[in-house]
Amino acid sequence: MASTAHHPLILNAAVLGLGLHMGAWRYREGAPFDYTKIEFYQEIGRIAEAGCLQAVFLADTLAVAEENFERPNFGAMDPTIVLAAVASVTKHVGLVATASTTYNEPYNLARRIATLDHLSCGRASWNIVTTFIPDVAANFGTAELPNHDDRYERAEEFVDVVTRLWDSWEDDALIGDKTTGRFADASRVHAINHRGAHYTVRGPITLPRSPQGRPVLYQSGSSRSGRDLAARFADAVFTPQNTIAAAQEFRTDVRGRTKERGRSPDDIKIIPGLLPILGGTEAEARARKDKLDELGGQAELKKLALRVGLRVEDLKLDEPLPIKLIADNDHFRASEGFRDAVVRLAVEQKLTVREILYRNGGGHVQVVGTPEQVADVIETWHREGAVDGFNLMIDVLPDGLRDFVEQVIPILQQRGAFRREYVGTTLRSNLGLTERH
Amino acid sequence: MASTAHHPLILNAAVLGLGLHMGAWRYREGAPFDYTKIEFYQEIGRIAEAGCLQAVFLADTLAVAEENFERPNFGAMDPTIVLAAVASVTKHVGLVATASTTYNEPYNLARRIATLDHLSCGRASWNIVTTFIPDVAANFGTAELPNHDDRYERAEEFVDVVTRLWDSWEDDALIGDKTTGRFADASRVHAINHRGAHYTVRGPITLPRSPQGRPVLYQSGSSRSGRDLAARFADAVFTPQNTIAAAQEFRTDVRGRTKERGRSPDDIKIIPGLLPILGGTEAEARARKDKLDELGGQAELKKLALRVGLRVEDLKLDEPLPIKLIADNDHFRASEGFRDAVVRLAVEQKLTVREILYRNGGGHVQVVGTPEQVADVIETWHREGAVDGFNLMIDVLPDGLRDFVEQVIPILQQRGAFRREYVGTTLRSNLGLTERH
Repeated sequence: MASTAHHPLILNAAVLGLGLHMGAWRYREGAPFDYTKIEFYQEIGRIAEAGCLQAVFLADTLAVAEENFERPNFGAMDPTIVLAAVASVTKHVGLVATASTTYNEPYNLARRIATLDHLSCGRASWNIVTTFIPDVAANFGTAELPNHDDRYERAEEFVDVVTRLWDSWEDDALIGDKTTGRFADASRVHAINHRGAHYTVRGPITLPRSPQGRPVLYQSGSSRSGRDLAARFADAVFTPQNTIAAAQEFRTDVRGRTKERGRSPDDIKIIPGLLPILGGTEAEARARKDKLDELGGQAELKKLALRVGLRVEDLKLDEPLPIKLIADNDHFRASEGFRDAVVRLAVEQKLTVREILYRNGGGHVQVVGTPEQVADVIETWHREGAVDGFNLMIDVLPDGLRDFVEQVIPILQQRGAFRREYVGTTLRSNLGLTERH
Repeated sequence: MASTAHHPLILNAAVLGLGLHMGAWRYREGAPFDYTKIEFYQEIGRIAEAGCLQAVFLADTLAVAEENFERPNFGAMDPTIVLAAVASVTKHVGLVATASTTYNEPYNLARRIATLDHLSCGRASWNIVTTFIPDVAANFGTAELPNHDDRYERAEEFVDVVTRLWDSWEDDALIGDKTTGRFADASRVHAINHRGAHYTVRGPITLPRSPQGRPVLYQSGSSRSGRDLAARFADAVFTPQNTIAAAQEFRTDVRGRTKERGRSPDDIKIIPGLLPILGGTEAEARARKDKLDELGGQAELKKLALRVGLRVEDLKLDEPLPIKLIADNDHFRASEGFRDAVVRLAVEQKLTVREILYRNGGGHVQVVGTPEQVADVIETWHREGAVDGFNLMIDVLPDGLRDFVEQVIPILQQRGAFRREYVGTTLRSNLGLTERH
């Protein structure tokens, strides 16, 4: 495993609906409609910045599913637009927008992320996903969702085009000499003339090179293809990991693949999700968790069934996961990374379905406890080389994030495990990444 | 002609690069890179709101042309993202984002405009264009730019899909009852199940119905197909008109087409562009214009050549427009509305190329004069039923807009020709349109 002694700890605030927990919308004080309001997102941005977090990380979903009638869609609003509103009230925190390579045009998406990078003075990031929800396809034509390998083949070409568009204006292409009237140097702006299997894009992009040169690339998707895509392009990987051992293995694997590509392994950051459920005492934290679970009702069970590719009736609360049923499913069309994380946890720790449900459905690691306990887990995972940091999958927004920033961050700072101020002006610099100019 | 006695005068601030005039970037005080900065757009938003203008109107371009190396691209940044930053510092002014029906997916665009409508509490508008620049096609695949009629056929289907997606959640579909746990009423959220010649979209959209129900639809494009598209869908039409007679004719025609569609002619607003070049005296205004023209160099001549579909060398400064050459061009691929406006003006008023150039290339009407003279033109055109208002094609941003708001708006207000405060909370209400809930 690789040391993280000299790697700055990365902590992002993940924004999914009104909080990751299915019961969040009922638990929180604010209105159930807040996830459509500018103030909701701006407040999250301000709190994240007060805590020196590296970024606000927005999910995206391109379809309405049945469960979205039971709680807010995890990515109802277009993230690039929401993040421009967050950029308006913050100065340092990074802005990560999830967007699909399967259901966007590279020219449009490159331009949107570059626009956000300009507006935020270098804080934009694109979280690359390929979309695994079959229902999305029906909103974009007659073709079915491409299979996993096709999506990743397309994604690789898509990201290549986007990065070349970002590079299509050299740094000094804009001259802006009012006296001579020379505005730009056409010889320093280049068509990319891409002709590939899936995309044909001439370029250049409409914008001068953005402050980061290349906006930060997050990649979500932990399958082999996802890891290879990350190894080639990504600055950071968002992944579901629920044990230190599994996370160490994943991180070592991705760093290795990155090195094979000729890149420094330190230039790819592994950022699993972490769900903190905080209380002043362990008992208070458990009470919060129990209340949330009660309010969430059957939603977690449905989510788990979707995640492993089964029907709700295939899962018995006090029995183990039906591993054979899961393995025999030839029509699995969800996230391989999530499914594999759940199955591994369930098998290794011999969990019943009920126990899996209690542990955030076996996806991202969950800590129900005091601020000290949460800080301990974060510090341990980081020290053990399992992670470069975490996407904080806040249970209830924005209060859960405020609690984290007010209670956990100071502990980490006192221990010297987390910085007290932003070190640079760009997201890239605040992630400890090499500048890409 | 239709009376506008009881129609509120509409004035929008159009944002194109650093100002409409080709010499703007050299004339203004700020940096030539300001068109990529959040402060630039936010300042324009604040000034427009101080003047009670109905909206900030952003252009969009999906390719870089040769002339963009001589001055800023008129639509370099993605407008929907820029306008979220403007929404963050304003409360009343409308936000009009141009976007192409030829190079977007209806599901994505519907969602982006709905997101902006939510974030801005009901101030979003989409300016529908079909893209007439052949170079754009090369950034989106191997197909050439579809011909004019194909683009409009596609646009009609596209807009139909977008409006149905906006309508896919009924007003009261979101319940949000924390006590019972009922979040939304699935029976009030509808798939649209669209299957057409160009698009297949199941829906519904990911978002609850936005504050305006239907964000305002602007339409730009003054050809017959453009007017028919507007008559079916648009709340407002942006059009180049350079004489009162031509504008009256256009307005009467579009209102008639709208009525034929079973809509009230008062529910479609005709908004030509107007380029004010202000000075404390007429001589000062002329000096400003001369200075701008000097700084703009050959750019205006190139723009005129493009606009009428000829080469620069086909135009002789002291001769009339070569009308026959223009008419014989079978390969014309620019805006018919602009070309026809220029030709009509040149013929009716027997102008030389030099005289056309002086008049803003014969596109939008231009007034070089004192605040009183500019106010006179606005009031006269409105009173004569030629327009419902103007998109102010500000010569130099943001100073030209500030001058307009400080010098022209008070005159219009003193004459009772322009309101002193916003009348409603949504753009729709501030345009005097029927609510679409």
